[in-house]
Amino acid sequence: MSTRTLIRGGLVVTAADETHADVLIEDGRIAALAAHGSEQAASWTADRVIDATDKYVIPGGVDAHTHMELPFGGTFASDTFETGTRAAAWGGTTTIVDFAVQSQGRSLREGLDAWYAKADGKCAIDYAFHMILSDVNESTLKEMDRLVEEGITSFKLFMAYPGVFYSDDGQILRAMQRSAGNGGLIMMHAENGIAIDVLVEQALQRGETDPRYHGEVRKVLLEAEATHRAIQLARVAGAPLYVVHVSAEEAVAELAAARDKGLPVFGETCPQYLFLSTDNLAEPDFHGAKYVCSTPLRPREHQAALWRGLRTDDLQVVSTDHCPFCFVGQKELGRGDFSKIPNGLPGVENRMDLLHQAVVDGHISRRRWIDIACAAPARMFGLYGKKGTLAPGADADVVVYDPTAEQTLSAETHHMNVDYSAYEGKRIRGQVETVLSRGEVVIDRREFTGRAGHGHYTPRGTCQYLNH
Amino acid sequence: MSTRTLIRGGLVVTAADETHADVLIEDGRIAALAAHGSEQAASWTADRVIDATDKYVIPGGVDAHTHMELPFGGTFASDTFETGTRAAAWGGTTTIVDFAVQSQGRSLREGLDAWYAKADGKCAIDYAFHMILSDVNESTLKEMDRLVEEGITSFKLFMAYPGVFYSDDGQILRAMQRSAGNGGLIMMHAENGIAIDVLVEQALQRGETDPRYHGEVRKVLLEAEATHRAIQLARVAGAPLYVVHVSAEEAVAELAAARDKGLPVFGETCPQYLFLSTDNLAEPDFHGAKYVCSTPLRPREHQAALWRGLRTDDLQVVSTDHCPFCFVGQKELGRGDFSKIPNGLPGVENRMDLLHQAVVDGHISRRRWIDIACAAPARMFGLYGKKGTLAPGADADVVVYDPTAEQTLSAETHHMNVDYSAYEGKRIRGQVETVLSRGEVVIDRREFTGRAGHGHYTPRGTCQYLNH
Amino acid sequence: MSTRTLIRGGLVVTAADETHADVLIEDGRIAALAAHGSEQAASWTADRVIDATDKYVIPGGVDAHTHMELPFGGTFASDTFETGTRAAAWGGTTTIVDFAVQSQGRSLREGLDAWYAKADGKCAIDYAFHMILSDVNESTLKEMDRLVEEGITSFKLFMAYPGVFYSDDGQILRAMQRSAGNGGLIMMHAENGIAIDVLVEQALQRGETDPRYHGEVRKVLLEAEATHRAIQLARVAGAPLYVVHVSAEEAVAELAAARDKGLPVFGETCPQYLFLSTDNLAEPDFHGAKYVCSTPLRPREHQAALWRGLRTDDLQVVSTDHCPFCFVGQKELGRGDFSKIPNGLPGVENRMDLLHQAVVDGHISRRRWIDIACAAPARMFGLYGKKGTLAPGADADVVVYDPTAEQTLSAETHHMNVDYSAYEGKRIRGQVETVLSRGEVVIDRREFTGRAGHGHYTPRGTCQYLNH
Amino acid sequence: MSTRTLIRGGLVVTAADETHADVLIEDGRIAALAAHGSEQAASWTADRVIDATDKYVIPGGVDAHTHMELPFGGTFASDTFETGTRAAAWGGTTTIVDFAVQSQGRSLREGLDAWYAKADGKCAIDYAFHMILSDVNESTLKEMDRLVEEGITSFKLFMAYPGVFYSDDGQILRAMQRSAGNGGLIMMHAENGIAIDVLVEQALQRGETDPRYHGEVRKVLLEAEATHRAIQLARVAGAPLYVVHVSAEEAVAELAAARDKGLPVFGETCPQYLFLSTDNLAEPDFHGAKYVCSTPLRPREHQAALWRGLRTDDLQVVSTDHCPFCFVGQKELGRGDFSKIPNGLPGVENRMDLLHQAVVDGHISRRRWIDIACAAPARMFGLYGKKGTLAPGADADVVVYDPTAEQTLSAETHHMNVDYSAYEGKRIRGQVETVLSRGEVVIDRREFTGRAGHGHYTPRGTCQYLNH
Repeated sequence: MSTRTLIRGGLVVTAADETHADVLIEDGRIAALAAHGSEQAASWTADRVIDATDKYVIPGGVDAHTHMELPFGGTFASDTFETGTRAAAWGGTTTIVDFAVQSQGRSLREGLDAWYAKADGKCAIDYAFHMILSDVNESTLKEMDRLVEEGITSFKLFMAYPGVFYSDDGQILRAMQRSAGNGGLIMMHAENGIAIDVLVEQALQRGETDPRYHGEVRKVLLEAEATHRAIQLARVAGAPLYVVHVSAEEAVAELAAARDKGLPVFGETCPQYLFLSTDNLAEPDFHGAKYVCSTPLRPREHQAALWRGLRTDDLQVVSTDHCPFCFVGQKELGRGDFSKIPNGLPGVENRMDLLHQAVVDGHISRRRWIDIACAAPARMFGLYGKKGTLAPGADADVVVYDPTAEQTLSAETHHMNVDYSAYEGKRIRGQVETVLSRGEVVIDRREFTGRAGHGHYTPRGTCQYLNH
Repeated sequence: MSTRTLIRGGLVVTAADETHADVLIEDGRIAALAAHGSEQAASWTADRVIDATDKYVIPGGVDAHTHMELPFGGTFASDTFETGTRAAAWGGTTTIVDFAVQSQGRSLREGLDAWYAKADGKCAIDYAFHMILSDVNESTLKEMDRLVEEGITSFKLFMAYPGVFYSDDGQILRAMQRSAGNGGLIMMHAENGIAIDVLVEQALQRGETDPRYHGEVRKVLLEAEATHRAIQLARVAGAPLYVVHVSAEEAVAELAAARDKGLPVFGETCPQYLFLSTDNLAEPDFHGAKYVCSTPLRPREHQAALWRGLRTDDLQVVSTDHCPFCFVGQKELGRGDFSKIPNGLPGVENRMDLLHQAVVDGHISRRRWIDIACAAPARMFGLYGKKGTLAPGADADVVVYDPTAEQTLSAETHHMNVDYSAYEGKRIRGQVETVLSRGEVVIDRREFTGRAGHGHYTPRGTCQYLNH
Repeated sequence: MSTRTLIRGGLVVTAADETHADVLIEDGRIAALAAHGSEQAASWTADRVIDATDKYVIPGGVDAHTHMELPFGGTFASDTFETGTRAAAWGGTTTIVDFAVQSQGRSLREGLDAWYAKADGKCAIDYAFHMILSDVNESTLKEMDRLVEEGITSFKLFMAYPGVFYSDDGQILRAMQRSAGNGGLIMMHAENGIAIDVLVEQALQRGETDPRYHGEVRKVLLEAEATHRAIQLARVAGAPLYVVHVSAEEAVAELAAARDKGLPVFGETCPQYLFLSTDNLAEPDFHGAKYVCSTPLRPREHQAALWRGLRTDDLQVVSTDHCPFCFVGQKELGRGDFSKIPNGLPGVENRMDLLHQAVVDGHISRRRWIDIACAAPARMFGLYGKKGTLAPGADADVVVYDPTAEQTLSAETHHMNVDYSAYEGKRIRGQVETVLSRGEVVIDRREFTGRAGHGHYTPRGTCQYLNH
Repeated sequence: MSTRTLIRGGLVVTAADETHADVLIEDGRIAALAAHGSEQAASWTADRVIDATDKYVIPGGVDAHTHMELPFGGTFASDTFETGTRAAAWGGTTTIVDFAVQSQGRSLREGLDAWYAKADGKCAIDYAFHMILSDVNESTLKEMDRLVEEGITSFKLFMAYPGVFYSDDGQILRAMQRSAGNGGLIMMHAENGIAIDVLVEQALQRGETDPRYHGEVRKVLLEAEATHRAIQLARVAGAPLYVVHVSAEEAVAELAAARDKGLPVFGETCPQYLFLSTDNLAEPDFHGAKYVCSTPLRPREHQAALWRGLRTDDLQVVSTDHCPFCFVGQKELGRGDFSKIPNGLPGVENRMDLLHQAVVDGHISRRRWIDIACAAPARMFGLYGKKGTLAPGADADVVVYDPTAEQTLSAETHHMNVDYSAYEGKRIRGQVETVLSRGEVVIDRREFTGRAGHGHYTPRGTCQYLNH
């Protein structure tokens, strides 16, 4: 006989509905929802009853962009799959989609297997993989088809980082054509890296080595240009497109223009672009290095465009691009040369809270919070139904969220394996109280009760956001 | 003890989710949903069990734009609240929002009370009212506040029909300012009626009296112009805006441009603009008169822009603007002078089916079907939660829909009180099988089991679509 | 035998060319231009030789928008045709196009004859007339045809000033249709006066009576809206359109969008919008009243858009809308009620100098200066060839301009009949030195040598700017 | 004593003016213009008098884009500087700006000297050079500065032709930055050649070898994309940009959008895009090869956008991109593989006539004809004043044009050294009658009286179109 858990008395919030309902969980899945106070609900019994009175009951977060243990610039992202997924759970995220990396000259399979191995048995929550294509050629194009069948249905390409991850427009076009055929979704890092590298070289020649120059050389126009180019190439290929970590108002405008034409073009932004700015990059004593990521933080006035894009659905997803490097020993590799600072910020633990703060601040509604943080990423990457919603039959990935609790973000209290917080000292209203992953309680009233290995690898279907 | 109804084995489709779930109804409300085949679902018993195997289980439709018994051009729309709401039920619509009309020189109250009286005890399904403002002045502005409190939270103004419903830009601005304060939503008939009347007069002087000239004089540019103007006035007033019966590509473009700026501007289109065209207006022997409505039908190529707008959410709602006049004796009033043809089409019974056909044709997804036909109109007009979704606690307005049945639309088989069908002979895949209104079966396997007076007047809250 | 004048040694600047050439005048016309220093030039003799060494030799200015002696708000513009045209000559303008006014209920003919009479025998320079239509009806539409033949080829309509000059959209459409047939050009005051009047009333009710509220109620969006509407009506009519006194960035954007579509839509701005701002309207002690005109002055940041529009040819003409009212006794009519301040600024004398300053400041090139101030207005209003250029056969309206002289604008030194200068104290580089009107010297090294009655009424052809 | 030529009685048409004037030429320059019939004109005598009664007298054409003797695809353009410039003279063009080519790995100087040598002593009319940069590096960037000083003030880069002329975005950015400093103007072949090469390879693999596939693989979107990218890179560099041979409506839209922002972005189109289409590329029996050029001919509907762009000044210049290859022996190199067809069309002789036909057809006005064919290219490339206009002091490059003559374009009658005409059989109204180059008659009533070596190399100033 099955184990039953009952979450009683909360306000169930999904991307579509807000309803006072009790949630019954059987065998790791949502068995039923009943109107709170109804005869039916009253009749329910369970092995475990969680009282959610005055709390929100929401789907577990889906973070579609993380980089655990990523090798970058001669070092590795400081969160392992173990530490990173545990921190995710603390932050109310119950699924991550991480990036397996193809090494240049090697097969996709080899890279994917390496990532399977890294994650296997380590994760506190469920996980899936995208594949980074570093080398588009006849052989890897064929592998794409097989990966889609295997549940790796999205492929990331880079218009930035020449000599590392960079693909030229011909490679991009070929990969897009392939994905148009096999149902895969191309994810694009849209920055004109060839032009940026010229500006980097010139800045360093002028002695501009401080982290803030990272933000100055990676120009808004070069993000917008690449976004436009990626969209045009996708039109030529007849393929959908998902642009990662959109940070500039002008890039949002390119997406909006494409979507007004009805093109299947999607965009993701990240909390750092919504809450941080070039002011942070300019922090003295090299502390700006903490905020070095690409696309870079932008001047504060871009934030309004990102919020607007999230409200108008020109941006669909907020992911973290979680890619932490410690300030000491890692970010410091770039002292005297901003181009050597490992690119990336920690964030997997903070996303749900920061976006709830956006609800409090009036940027988005509660339903939109759940949409951009849970439902849309699940739908975009073929996990919806199972993940991203609270509906009968879905995985019982559930967060009991206290909307009135107050907390202060800090490296001292966070659970990510990194020596600083990008949001140090920031006051937040709202906090994760209890988290279930497939029915198991992994955070219990702010105590970690999960374990490495509970999290399963989850193959994905193709994008569910098309023709929606 | 309550009456329980159980709908078993269908695919529950809402604007957000598709799940195989059993639906339990208690006391006219959705009590619970349980995963089909779960222990929980298996344990349920009920007084009445409806088998929905291989069927969709969807929220009852919400038609936010009907005109039962509307006085127009010296005659009356041919459906009464009794015949019209019965036909609506046949078509899977369980809520209508009709328009109470203020007569010029009279109070809103007087008009509203007249409409309360017309509908009282007649309706087969639930109903609510918008208010048409024919005369914006200090007194009626004050009445608006009271009506919002009473549950009449939306007010229609006309930029067309000078001398009848027409408001000038100053009146429009004042009404918008008022609604910005009281939470009301201005609904706009956006056509430049002053300019159109010049073109009407000139056409008639040239002897152009056929119904097709109705489409020629009411120019696309004059719909787009009025749409733009209404948006700018709403910006000045700081008020949201809902544009009714959008028919022209250029008008959609104005809405899209406004929404890209993040403005709270919304748009509705109707099945006639999606499925009919000026080809129909040009039907010989005065049969074009059957298709005379305003805004008019447009050349066929506008349809793609409307479908695109529905997909991109630049248009949020599909209503019918149901306003039937019999060909014999009513439409015929305009023989020899198209300007005397009563404006309006029948459609309240056809909307859900036509939009399902659009799913079959690939224009929209199933979820988007439910969104534009049920959830969005409910949200737009303050009914969501109660209407427009299938969630615990919602009114048990439920349709069991057979997606594989085939039917042919025809005046011979429809239930609207009008002597023609605008879609005569059109083949449709999909058909309403059973309809529940607040838990009562009003259509039972294609037999009407409802009654006049079952339908309740439903006061509405304010727009739930803002800052979504 | 004819009188010959020779202007020797200057830099001849036209809208197209800059060339060191001597200019020979015979019988009031440009007879020939010869390369300075050529044998041909060296051989020339003349009755009068003007030395233009180190000076510019430019066409006399064409000010296409003046209101001498205009009745407005219970008073009259303070410059008569005599004082106003003399001041124009001082400022290097040799042609004005003033507005004859139809009184409501009267014929165009009657209004036009009144203006012929006012100007006859008074003017120091040549003049022509536009016609203001206050009452569009069958009779006045027919008169339009006759006026075009008579040389009155442009007709001004107002979307502002309800109850005074205002035409509704039907009247506008009819007048545009008529002009599409007879070759006339509709000039539009594009502000939504109906909506503005609501805001005026509300402001006054709130006790906002200061001149600065004039700028606040006449909102940018209501200028942009009317501009858009006028363009759409012109498209429906198939007629060209000239929008007067464009002041807002958003209105420029409407013109630019129309022109990108290839529509025959033109725009004029005025020096006050280029050099003044709402800061002036906010000057204390009612001095803001000096700057009250409609469209109103805008916040400073709109100026960049106007300069850009002039460079990109989205705006073609700079006119003055010269309409002076003395501060004492006239502007003062609006103390305690900004809506009673007569609308208008003096400027006919300052235009050429202010635009030369714009050359010095780098906003426009020398050729563009001559284009927007001389050639384009002449072309727009059917005077080109005769006026606006220095080509063989053209009227010898010539200005010798000293580009290095410095002057300070001031009511103490200006020649307009008004007790203040809108540019009091402004330092300008460049000054008119000598002015010829049809070969006669009317300003001779900064001494007035002209006379009332020298100026001729000049019938105009139709717009020469179409299909250019 | 000087030689004097007098052109009497014609209608002198420039970009700005149309005037009945006699033109006096002394020593190879325009000495004077006098109103026809004036005393002054009547007094003139000359060694040679040309009667231009009923004719136009216009500036000689300036063709800013020719490729005489260009090595391409293993062969050479079939016109030498001798045959090509003679044909130009026949067609009323008196100045060409040809492209000197840097070979990869060699200096600019070496390439330029080779072109000086090719042209020296051969040309019938004046000529100047742009420089093609095939290899942007530190050394060639420095050479750019010296070339600007020497009168080579424009530099062409290619986003197409990888492995041949192609520059990557970093090289483009560097060259733009350099030109921003030295006053040079970057000319861009804007097509995404990297993506196009993928499509070429795929088409050939599918057996699509016919010339018409040349048009299909070089997609409109890939021209528009590259145009957008070039504009963005120019913005980053702070440099002006001139886009050559614009052929697609979507590319015009990119230019228009840039110009609406006030950016110094310019565009050229060519007669082949205005008069020919993909219909020609689809001509059977490999005759489509005659029309193979890049950017390719487009579907007919793009022509309207190009004409509109020329009218709205979003396109400024019409050049020929004259690059002839004989059908026999040259075009035939691509039988069985469209990618091997030498790219280019003959046209230097036809441009002035085709554009006059456009005047007759109502696409452009007479003045605009002279603007886009003479004045604007001269101004764009630093030749104005000397070339492109008829003003005192300008070079006496003059065409007497008969606007009523009729002719039929044909390889049998043309003077270009190529075995076909792209416009074979096309009827034209208007014909060049007499042509003067610096005062010497090179075509005399349709007889060639010029000689190889008359034409001088003409160093150029920097772009005169900026801030105009």
